Amino acid sequence: MASGNLLYAQSGGVTAVINATAAAVIGAARARKVKVLAARNGILGVLREELIDTSKESAAAIRALAHTPGGAFGSCRVKLKSLEQDRARYERLLEVFKAHDVRWFLYNGGNDSADTALKVSQLAAEFGYPLTCVGVPKTVDNDLAVTDCCPGFGSAAKYTAVSVRECALDVAAMADTSTKVFVYEAMGRHAGWLAAAAGLAGRGTDEAPHLILFPERPYEEAAFFAQVKATVERVGYCVVVASEGIQTADGRFVADAGGGKDSFGHTQLGGVASYLAGRVKDTLGYKVHWTLPDYLQRSARHLASKTDLAQAQAVGKAAVELALKGRNAVMPVIVRTADAPYRWKIEAAPLDRIANHEKKMPANFIRKDGYGITDAARRYLEPLIRGEAPPPYGRDGIPRYVVLKNVLVKAKLPAFDG
Amino acid sequence: MASGNLLYAQSGGVTAVINATAAAVIGAARARKVKVLAARNGILGVLREELIDTSKESAAAIRALAHTPGGAFGSCRVKLKSLEQDRARYERLLEVFKAHDVRWFLYNGGNDSADTALKVSQLAAEFGYPLTCVGVPKTVDNDLAVTDCCPGFGSAAKYTAVSVRECALDVAAMADTSTKVFVYEAMGRHAGWLAAAAGLAGRGTDEAPHLILFPERPYEEAAFFAQVKATVERVGYCVVVASEGIQTADGRFVADAGGGKDSFGHTQLGGVASYLAGRVKDTLGYKVHWTLPDYLQRSARHLASKTDLAQAQAVGKAAVELALKGRNAVMPVIVRTADAPYRWKIEAAPLDRIANHEKKMPANFIRKDGYGITDAARRYLEPLIRGEAPPPYGRDGIPRYVVLKNVLVKAKLPAFDG
Repeated sequence: MASGNLLYAQSGGVTAVINATAAAVIGAARARKVKVLAARNGILGVLREELIDTSKESAAAIRALAHTPGGAFGSCRVKLKSLEQDRARYERLLEVFKAHDVRWFLYNGGNDSADTALKVSQLAAEFGYPLTCVGVPKTVDNDLAVTDCCPGFGSAAKYTAVSVRECALDVAAMADTSTKVFVYEAMGRHAGWLAAAAGLAGRGTDEAPHLILFPERPYEEAAFFAQVKATVERVGYCVVVASEGIQTADGRFVADAGGGKDSFGHTQLGGVASYLAGRVKDTLGYKVHWTLPDYLQRSARHLASKTDLAQAQAVGKAAVELALKGRNAVMPVIVRTADAPYRWKIEAAPLDRIANHEKKMPANFIRKDGYGITDAARRYLEPLIRGEAPPPYGRDGIPRYVVLKNVLVKAKLPAFDG
Repeated sequence: MASGNLLYAQSGGVTAVINATAAAVIGAARARKVKVLAARNGILGVLREELIDTSKESAAAIRALAHTPGGAFGSCRVKLKSLEQDRARYERLLEVFKAHDVRWFLYNGGNDSADTALKVSQLAAEFGYPLTCVGVPKTVDNDLAVTDCCPGFGSAAKYTAVSVRECALDVAAMADTSTKVFVYEAMGRHAGWLAAAAGLAGRGTDEAPHLILFPERPYEEAAFFAQVKATVERVGYCVVVASEGIQTADGRFVADAGGGKDSFGHTQLGGVASYLAGRVKDTLGYKVHWTLPDYLQRSARHLASKTDLAQAQAVGKAAVELALKGRNAVMPVIVRTADAPYRWKIEAAPLDRIANHEKKMPANFIRKDGYGITDAARRYLEPLIRGEAPPPYGRDGIPRYVVLKNVLVKAKLPAFDG
């Protein structure tokens, strides 16, 4: 095996289990006597030469990492442009790699990160620097190509399905004299994967969620109101799950309709759920409540899916193995080999099949009327939320989440201004 | 023991554990061979003579009830007025009790329900009808007098503390390039109990939640902004927990400032978190996110506190025992006998000491600067969120919550129009 260090970085929005991937990466590398550096705040930490020495963390801390949500080394929302446009930054990455003897680069993120990892590998080849770049999948949006599903999605999906089931029981109990319509806003700007997962909370049109609004279908207010009214009259109440990304037929985001400025010129941060709730109240006259779980849905490690956790760990371990074998410009992906009983395995896929692609939800996952999921969707989604993997709790009633020491290695290069 | 039936009803907003109280009531009554009727949708079910025969439910269903959130028989938001003003309705309650041989009435709710139970007991005495009325405590607001805490609060408090810890880890990871301020809106229109519980998520001013806004303290925007700015500059990000009930010094609810109508005349359902987030964004220029958990916080049975669950069951069992002993117009309350180790017991307290009273949060629970909790608050709150009591999960990855058959007994009286 070549000597040198492995650099791991987290990118984009974090998830309930991205740290489980990190723990698996560190564990697998330690077992092979390879030192792992972690970039502070993703790729920014490389540009800034802020590299964390993970060998300063105890084995217990790394074990605890596997049940801690968030991004333990920090993540970032920075997308590098093309090699031509962002040449100086790509070259800086290589300089930092060289300065710290980084021979393996693992970038844990979505489409953009796969693209960055691919470009870095191309530049390294151009410069003749021996570097193996491996992408590691992660995103609650579940929109990565090739892989059957994305680590992080299953736990957010479980959170969504369980939360919708729970609040629906609440609404059912109160509907006679109080709230008749409840709107739950799910993440998903471009694809309705998490909104679809809410469909696992019930079966049939009389069980909550009664109506799901997908970004894949144009939002038509009159038709939606007719469905809400019919549901309230038939069931007594109506639980709506709305994807944050729903749009009208002419391509306007419904969320934007709910925002804007109030009469004092103050910014109104509306969102889809508050907008829909206001319109339903005004038009149909029902008492409404709504929820915007926001980051709670992607950080709820206490409700992680055991399947998702296992996959997050598996891609981390596989990424190290691929890297140490010199498998350049690939990503370990999840391959589903059976629905029932659910079986999956890890394979390597070339980064250029993943970078900048976006997986849409199949059309046959959405019911013909547009307001619910099909059996095909259920077969796909259900295994992903299966199993529980609760974190250990302290005597204080709160999960024992770890905060790492994150000791930086000494910088060797001049500061980079870019 | 007198023959006859026991009538149980749920009132007001439901909780993660009110059904555990119901299960304990039914279990204790069954053990004593007493039949339990349950009112459909709280006191409304009595007025309408819609009484559920719980003997039609299997032992397994009643056991499952103990881990099912919501209100299994339905609840309602109806407050009866004084005996003079609402005479006809109180007399109707007695008629229904007589028609169904109800000798024990257990009303599971908050201040209003205690008041109703008390008035019913007075009217029964006036009419010479042998009835024992027992209140059973429940409310996530934790504002009942006499009892040390209220079943339902501990689980909502645990949800709040755990959720705030989790989303804070998310924000911490993203703050460098993304969200710097996060606002979490907690229930509590009149008292900041749940906002205070969020304080259990961290220790010291550098751990989230960095700032808590209590309804007990006037909201002053400039001072708050200064705290937010100082926190972001010191820590890198700022997690704010705001009680829905915060008011300005002149007594206006901040939530109302965020609502109103947009330029199209549409209702804006703002809430405190979206308003504060918008103001922080406009004034300080930080990227903000916010969450409104709404009903999720009171229905999250998957994250129930074991302490809370035990107390919810204990008050249910005690209520049956008190009723069957003929202890009229009382409520089983929780008495704390020690903080560390935490010990509690159940005692009976007269309903007239509880009805229409409201317990405020002690002034010494709020830090001098107004933005956090004290050690005294921590000593009080921490035992209430201690211990986990997860529901059983199905193969589908979702808790096995039960929906009862809710078979009504045959009505014997003419319909009541009131």
